[in-house]
Amino acid sequence: MKAITESFEIPTRGKGTYEITDEVSALLKRSGIKTGLATVFVQHTSASLVIYENADPTARADLHRYFEDLVPEDHPGLIHTAEGPDDSTSHLRMALTRTSESIPIAEGRLQLGTWQGIYLFEHRSAPHRRTVVVSLIGN
Amino acid sequence: MKAITESFEIPTRGKGTYEITDEVSALLKRSGIKTGLATVFVQHTSASLVIYENADPTARADLHRYFEDLVPEDHPGLIHTAEGPDDSTSHLRMALTRTSESIPIAEGRLQLGTWQGIYLFEHRSAPHRRTVVVSLIGN
Amino acid sequence: MKAITESFEIPTRGKGTYEITDEVSALLKRSGIKTGLATVFVQHTSASLVIYENADPTARADLHRYFEDLVPEDHPGLIHTAEGPDDSTSHLRMALTRTSESIPIAEGRLQLGTWQGIYLFEHRSAPHRRTVVVSLIGN
Repeated sequence: MKAITESFEIPTRGKGTYEITDEVSALLKRSGIKTGLATVFVQHTSASLVIYENADPTARADLHRYFEDLVPEDHPGLIHTAEGPDDSTSHLRMALTRTSESIPIAEGRLQLGTWQGIYLFEHRSAPHRRTVVVSLIGN
Repeated sequence: MKAITESFEIPTRGKGTYEITDEVSALLKRSGIKTGLATVFVQHTSASLVIYENADPTARADLHRYFEDLVPEDHPGLIHTAEGPDDSTSHLRMALTRTSESIPIAEGRLQLGTWQGIYLFEHRSAPHRRTVVVSLIGN
Repeated sequence: MKAITESFEIPTRGKGTYEITDEVSALLKRSGIKTGLATVFVQHTSASLVIYENADPTARADLHRYFEDLVPEDHPGLIHTAEGPDDSTSHLRMALTRTSESIPIAEGRLQLGTWQGIYLFEHRSAPHRRTVVVSLIGN
């Protein structure tokens, strides 16, 4: 039984989703773990994780659009805006998606479905470098 | 220390919530694990997981109703609708709930609270067969 | 390799967020685990978890405010209100945030980012005692 914790950085160009499936799969492959659990964790409160449809880019375009509507930057009453109109909304959009996501491992592979990709969801308008931590546990 | 990854299928009759607590508990019992972690993962982007109130069916009726209001099928501007008006909205409703859920194990049992049931949340109108993967790690 | 499951109680004074990072860190320290995974799980359907900005209290004030707007107690059509107008809405707000959250462990510490705190999110108006279960797995 092994327990490994590693991390990697991902640069963003501002708001949007950035696929990190390959980075997580590469860490799993290197670990040699065949059966167990991979947990992906983002160390930020203005970026989050989401497992989303990875085939047709219009799916993610709708995700980006919908979140602008669900948590609008002019939502009345928000006061945590010292860093701009995308400050509080970035935290709220993070809270509505995920900070951690756990994916079972079998036969040495992440047990993702055919259309599932792991994405970092950047909620700030400016480019950022984001740190993703991955825990791998298993045999 | 054991690490086991198994899966099961659950048929749905279209939109709604389908309890899977018994299926997950049965896998745990068979594993013989007494202390550790159970992770439930759904391999789809148009169905999700939610742990919800398991006593009064009106609670889940409100959940279904609220998600129709929160992510309406006529939400303006959605373009990922090749498979129908429940296409993009099924992904968005998935993103707002969960793809994975992890439940601690003690004394050989899932440490769910009295009123917690694990549910598959189907977001497509048509019946589907959904695959749920379960990782069990522990002693 | 160790697998430990423990729990603690946290009293709430009604709606709001209550930081539990120190409680989880204390359990981790006592476990002696250096590398692995910590999973935090709340045993309730009217309270949830969220990892949120821990520096400026206005961030959490906006979170509380936004959830009142997103899931209003007078949302039309809700029928699960036997325990009051905060009954069904407490479950819905729970479903939109998290029941479990998993945080990688390295060098004996939770790998939280600088601005991340773990919070219990109480959705009922009345004070409650909430039970949080923590699974720790690793070496």
